[in-house]
Amino acid sequence: MNYKMIVYTLGWVLKIEAASMVIPLVCSLCYKETKDVFMFLLCMALCVIFGSVFSAVKPKNKAMYAKEGFVTVAFSWIMMSLFGALPFYLSGAIPNFIDAFFETVSGFTTTGASILTDVEALSKGMLMWRSLTHWIGGMGVLVFLMAILPLSGNGNLFLLRAESPGPSVSKLVPKIKSTAKILYGIYIAFTALQIMLMFFGGMSLFDSITLSFGTAGTGGFGTRNSSIAEYSPYIQYVITVFMILFGVDFSLYHALFFGERKALLKSEELRAYFGIILLSIAAIFINSRGVFATAEEAFRHISFSVGSIMTTTGYATTDFNLWPEFSKVILVLLMFVGACAGSTGGGIKVSRMIILFKSIAKEIRTSAHPRTTLKIKMNGRTVEHETVRGVNVFMASYVVIFFVAMLLISLDNFDFTTNFTAIAATINNIGPGLNMVGPTGNFSAFSGLSKVVMSFCMLIGRLEIFPMLLLFSPYTWKK
Amino acid sequence: MNYKMIVYTLGWVLKIEAASMVIPLVCSLCYKETKDVFMFLLCMALCVIFGSVFSAVKPKNKAMYAKEGFVTVAFSWIMMSLFGALPFYLSGAIPNFIDAFFETVSGFTTTGASILTDVEALSKGMLMWRSLTHWIGGMGVLVFLMAILPLSGNGNLFLLRAESPGPSVSKLVPKIKSTAKILYGIYIAFTALQIMLMFFGGMSLFDSITLSFGTAGTGGFGTRNSSIAEYSPYIQYVITVFMILFGVDFSLYHALFFGERKALLKSEELRAYFGIILLSIAAIFINSRGVFATAEEAFRHISFSVGSIMTTTGYATTDFNLWPEFSKVILVLLMFVGACAGSTGGGIKVSRMIILFKSIAKEIRTSAHPRTTLKIKMNGRTVEHETVRGVNVFMASYVVIFFVAMLLISLDNFDFTTNFTAIAATINNIGPGLNMVGPTGNFSAFSGLSKVVMSFCMLIGRLEIFPMLLLFSPYTWKK
Repeated sequence: MNYKMIVYTLGWVLKIEAASMVIPLVCSLCYKETKDVFMFLLCMALCVIFGSVFSAVKPKNKAMYAKEGFVTVAFSWIMMSLFGALPFYLSGAIPNFIDAFFETVSGFTTTGASILTDVEALSKGMLMWRSLTHWIGGMGVLVFLMAILPLSGNGNLFLLRAESPGPSVSKLVPKIKSTAKILYGIYIAFTALQIMLMFFGGMSLFDSITLSFGTAGTGGFGTRNSSIAEYSPYIQYVITVFMILFGVDFSLYHALFFGERKALLKSEELRAYFGIILLSIAAIFINSRGVFATAEEAFRHISFSVGSIMTTTGYATTDFNLWPEFSKVILVLLMFVGACAGSTGGGIKVSRMIILFKSIAKEIRTSAHPRTTLKIKMNGRTVEHETVRGVNVFMASYVVIFFVAMLLISLDNFDFTTNFTAIAATINNIGPGLNMVGPTGNFSAFSGLSKVVMSFCMLIGRLEIFPMLLLFSPYTWKK
Repeated sequence: MNYKMIVYTLGWVLKIEAASMVIPLVCSLCYKETKDVFMFLLCMALCVIFGSVFSAVKPKNKAMYAKEGFVTVAFSWIMMSLFGALPFYLSGAIPNFIDAFFETVSGFTTTGASILTDVEALSKGMLMWRSLTHWIGGMGVLVFLMAILPLSGNGNLFLLRAESPGPSVSKLVPKIKSTAKILYGIYIAFTALQIMLMFFGGMSLFDSITLSFGTAGTGGFGTRNSSIAEYSPYIQYVITVFMILFGVDFSLYHALFFGERKALLKSEELRAYFGIILLSIAAIFINSRGVFATAEEAFRHISFSVGSIMTTTGYATTDFNLWPEFSKVILVLLMFVGACAGSTGGGIKVSRMIILFKSIAKEIRTSAHPRTTLKIKMNGRTVEHETVRGVNVFMASYVVIFFVAMLLISLDNFDFTTNFTAIAATINNIGPGLNMVGPTGNFSAFSGLSKVVMSFCMLIGRLEIFPMLLLFSPYTWKK
């Protein structure tokens, strides 16, 4: 294990976190929140000090392999969350450190589950930092680091793989540094576009920026207790469209803008993604039409909710807890499906679902004809055996972690639906679930243990299980 | 596809079903239930007529392969249930045919989920038939057929594999016919022992027989509305012990009685099975002790419930719906784990769980060290790659079917916990779930569609998915 390289990288992660706090700092300055200005400066100083100490460790050997990649990513995210919780904690905005940690993990992992009962009581600076964590976590902090810093050559690929979502991660262009730059370029452009569309649609600049951060990262933190319910239908439609856009594989945007448009047509994941969204909207519309006054309202709230849950954003314009059970079960299923691989969304991912269904179909065929050898294909190409096995084991670990976590939080003695959907909402990085943790509820009533468990679920969900599990395996640490 | 051989075998299955109806017929004769005597004679006649027509088809070629094995087993179980529902339906005991079908599927698949609101209103003959379906389904009707009939040589193995539970089914002795005889021999001996222990413990002969049938098949149908709650503590302990015994891999009993006792010590599944049972009893005892008046009562009800759910029997001595949430979640988890492979119990099976955990551990190790090649071992031997893949795909199909079924029954608009545990209780062949389908509830309020869906879940659970799925695959029917 190349410890020096890991510590060195962690140092840089902290420095980037310090730099990113400039945004809420400026926000606090604009709104003359003197105490918060001081708090952000203090937290930035802490990040810089620790960051400098860490990155002062000069690794002789810059080589990083799979193991180092996973461990670096896992530690980076835990550390980012610990330091990111400081502004909330030190300013007294969230007086309990576990709560502040939960909220920050929820931010960076783009979950959007909150322990706050009154969001509107937070200062502008804190709200900005809270939303910014979504934006940073959406594309990933190590991807950002790769875009700006010359790390080791081979290590970058392992870091990219460990931090990016999806069953198999590949480079867009031969150089990883360029890949990272392209990804962030698209991300920034789309976010800027959404800010403008909302700002010129009559929204305040502050709300336009924070809500765009929350949408881009498919996070879900807002600035009002009622989430998106009070905004105009225009704003709600804009957010719906952008949530769905940020749930698409970013490599397809690269293909769209730089040539190979055929890739879009070939993408089975893209077709399935839009297919599931449309089908779900239609099914819920038929089932829940009666809940709404007009067809337009029904369409708006349903498409918003479907987009929000499928992309694992978690914004709400309406309380879907009140919908008929069939519609609610569809939403719960969408929680698990999640967005496309290579997007900022969470969940199991559409492409994993496709591979899963194809391997079931293959097993049925080989059951009937044991001597045939079949290969699973996707987008016209054979899926590697390693990827299929990876998806299968991913699913198995996912189910095991899901139920262990649910067992642990059931010690708080809340009802089954609350426990089940609380874990579903955190492990899939969505935010709201049903019952107590529904769109109008929050996670404040859970015990400290449950909050720590769910913080882990959020990290496990965002980093797709293995980086986190590796930390607990003795084999990782064996020489 | 060797259609003639399939039809021929189905004919014999019907004839065996006719023969098995002799037991409730005799019971009805003893209790002078004239109408039921007539009904059973009528149903036996129908089974014999159709059975003779089917088995009159003489296959030229007696060869059966994997495909024929799966299809034969799937059709046998559907047909057995259709004909088995006739006594309930024709006698008017269950006036709705879908209800009668649900109840019979629940019987043969050893689920024990009931649509009856008043079990005690049934005649003795009908109750005997209801319990006997558990006993027949527990060990399997095709296994019985193999024990008595000279079917084709190679086909038997495929039938055994398709009907017997577990990730990999092997013969106890070189001849399949002898294997089937040994299995039924152990089954009969244990059932007889339980009948005697209960009868000499003061229970009526009728109750001793019916409840032993229900225990042996890990079914759960009883003869009283209160399930096992009204019987003496002695009876409750006897049932607890036998439920747990019937949840053990029968090949281990063979090893125990005929030599190789080392196999018992080597069996990782056996250790895990008893480990999970003891751990669950301890955890629930700590969590739910306060619900009960005395420690003995707590221990008795908790060990009964854990044994009942883990082995997927479904008998109840107490309403665990009233326990704290943590205890309930443990029970829900046990529903999924299920009993040992090669037992009469349902669920995913302990050995699949072990393989699953080992493949997760392996994946973590290979993530850290991509170049190492590791093999999964069980009981000291390497698990074949095919078996591991089979387990993974089993899990994936299981989850998909689970949620599709849950979505369909949610159209009835009952609550999330009811829907979730209703599917868990049927697909794992347990019987009771939580809330509306808890130990004091039943499945009568569901719609016809939901009952059909859940009947399929029960069959899918008992036959372990692939035989049923194969029926719907076009590749099965292609020449």
